[in-house]
Amino acid sequence: MTQSIQDPFTKAQAPLLIQEVGPRDGFQIEAAFIPTVDKIALIDALSLCGLAKIEATSFTSPKAIPALADADEVLRGIRRQPGVVYTVLVPNLRGAERALAAGADELNLVMSTSETHNLLNLRMSREQSAGRLLEVVALTQGTQVALNVSLSTAFGCPMEGAVPEAVVLAYAQRFLEAGVRGITLCDTTGMANPRQVRALCEAFIGRFPGAELTLHLHNTRGMGLANALAGVEAGVQRFDASLGGLGGCPYAPGATGNVCTEDLVHMLQAMGYEVAVDLPRLLAAARSLPALLGHDVPGQVLHAGRSQDLHPIPASLTEIRARAEA
Amino acid sequence: MTQSIQDPFTKAQAPLLIQEVGPRDGFQIEAAFIPTVDKIALIDALSLCGLAKIEATSFTSPKAIPALADADEVLRGIRRQPGVVYTVLVPNLRGAERALAAGADELNLVMSTSETHNLLNLRMSREQSAGRLLEVVALTQGTQVALNVSLSTAFGCPMEGAVPEAVVLAYAQRFLEAGVRGITLCDTTGMANPRQVRALCEAFIGRFPGAELTLHLHNTRGMGLANALAGVEAGVQRFDASLGGLGGCPYAPGATGNVCTEDLVHMLQAMGYEVAVDLPRLLAAARSLPALLGHDVPGQVLHAGRSQDLHPIPASLTEIRARAEA
Repeated sequence: MTQSIQDPFTKAQAPLLIQEVGPRDGFQIEAAFIPTVDKIALIDALSLCGLAKIEATSFTSPKAIPALADADEVLRGIRRQPGVVYTVLVPNLRGAERALAAGADELNLVMSTSETHNLLNLRMSREQSAGRLLEVVALTQGTQVALNVSLSTAFGCPMEGAVPEAVVLAYAQRFLEAGVRGITLCDTTGMANPRQVRALCEAFIGRFPGAELTLHLHNTRGMGLANALAGVEAGVQRFDASLGGLGGCPYAPGATGNVCTEDLVHMLQAMGYEVAVDLPRLLAAARSLPALLGHDVPGQVLHAGRSQDLHPIPASLTEIRARAEA
Repeated sequence: MTQSIQDPFTKAQAPLLIQEVGPRDGFQIEAAFIPTVDKIALIDALSLCGLAKIEATSFTSPKAIPALADADEVLRGIRRQPGVVYTVLVPNLRGAERALAAGADELNLVMSTSETHNLLNLRMSREQSAGRLLEVVALTQGTQVALNVSLSTAFGCPMEGAVPEAVVLAYAQRFLEAGVRGITLCDTTGMANPRQVRALCEAFIGRFPGAELTLHLHNTRGMGLANALAGVEAGVQRFDASLGGLGGCPYAPGATGNVCTEDLVHMLQAMGYEVAVDLPRLLAAARSLPALLGHDVPGQVLHAGRSQDLHPIPASLTEIRARAEA
């Protein structure tokens, strides 16, 4: 089903593709180390949900992100499902070599479009980061691995404020010209609003129609699903989301919560969009999170149930009706 | 500013009007009684925020809703600001008489469009409820008081499921023909999705172009702001919202949280819509809620700050930059 018939004003793609980032973006900020076997079990459960991509882990220095120090074991331990792309975050050449050796389908490289955010987050200038990432691109020439570059703070930097559209598109162009297949526009700290999402995504798609564009949103100020919908209407097909709404950004104070995978799927399916995700199965996976992590998670459908899950009619209704009729 | 120039596909009105329901819809389910003087102080603070309407209290039986047993004192005690409509919820003739005596600007009558929900919530059939409300309409003939009817579960009933559009519009028509000025379409338990909001609101506006339509949304499944935006794009001008995201429905398990006033205003203003609400002042009022209620509130901008409120650049940046350049 395409949406063009029902929504004359949207450029919605069909099917919409959901990419799970919880095992990386969510787990990386958990205080307690999640046992490798549990990480693998969760990813294996997610692999059966109809997600297009799963960001399984991050090949960063174990010193920088101890929560994901078991990246090799996780990527080697999961049971891969056909049709699911297993991507991993990679900050540099060393990480790329490890990720390639462990058999990643895709390397997700990351830099910030804000100089201040990049310096604080990656301890390099943007130009230094771009250079490092292009080294990784060169390394993978002739391999089968796919490449994606995530551009952080594409919708605003919490220290600098607005990031010019031209800056974001210029970095995207540089990586696409170097042979990168996908670009992710990241609202790293939840600053985007729906008008802005629509504008930047339309500009991106207009300029790079062949690129694999992903929208990565946070729900920091409650606009997560409104922003996702703006992306859908602008023609974005791929959406990062995090099971249970896990995640945040350790370098951005007050920024908490990626867009929640099950809440996003629930909304899009309720609206009639084609999303090949098994929501009950996804909810079952989300339900395992509080015990796994030792704390509640922000996902709302997990707590309230799906819109279509009706509540039983209370036994008292018969008596209430009889009294009303009396 | 009208939005027609920037958004060719929306029917957005300017200005958008925000109606605060926290002192009624929020406070009514608080376990601890909020002292009358504190209710009055909060409403007085809200009166200076640029809100179009404030639902100050409910003239229900003190036995049914003890939290609002002080309705008379609250309505008589507040300092009214010109331009703000002070509305009160009224379930029946007795409540209407009390509200008129206390000087309400508007009576907000309520019934459900779902038979099951109406029976459970109001202990009457829908027809009995409609009859009672029409008695209130008759009572107010010749007075200056305005009338609004809130139609609960207009976007779905948690027990019955979908409520046919024709049923919702038929109740609206009956009350409008009887002389009621406003109709509120209520997503009482947060079941609506943006496509549904757009469809029902467009149908309503097409059929009753002169009616004062309000959209009353809950954020139960995370779609609150996406639904509000769908309403804006359908041409709805008035939106109920609750400071801090207080509220819920005591008769609908799992249903928590009206759309949060400050989060809604924040999104709409960030998008460039004309909303004459003083957001910093509103946030100051919201900031008083946790101490007043003894618990945290779900509003997100309260915790994360506005998108445009930048964080200071850490002192460490200079050193980080120097090392990066070395």
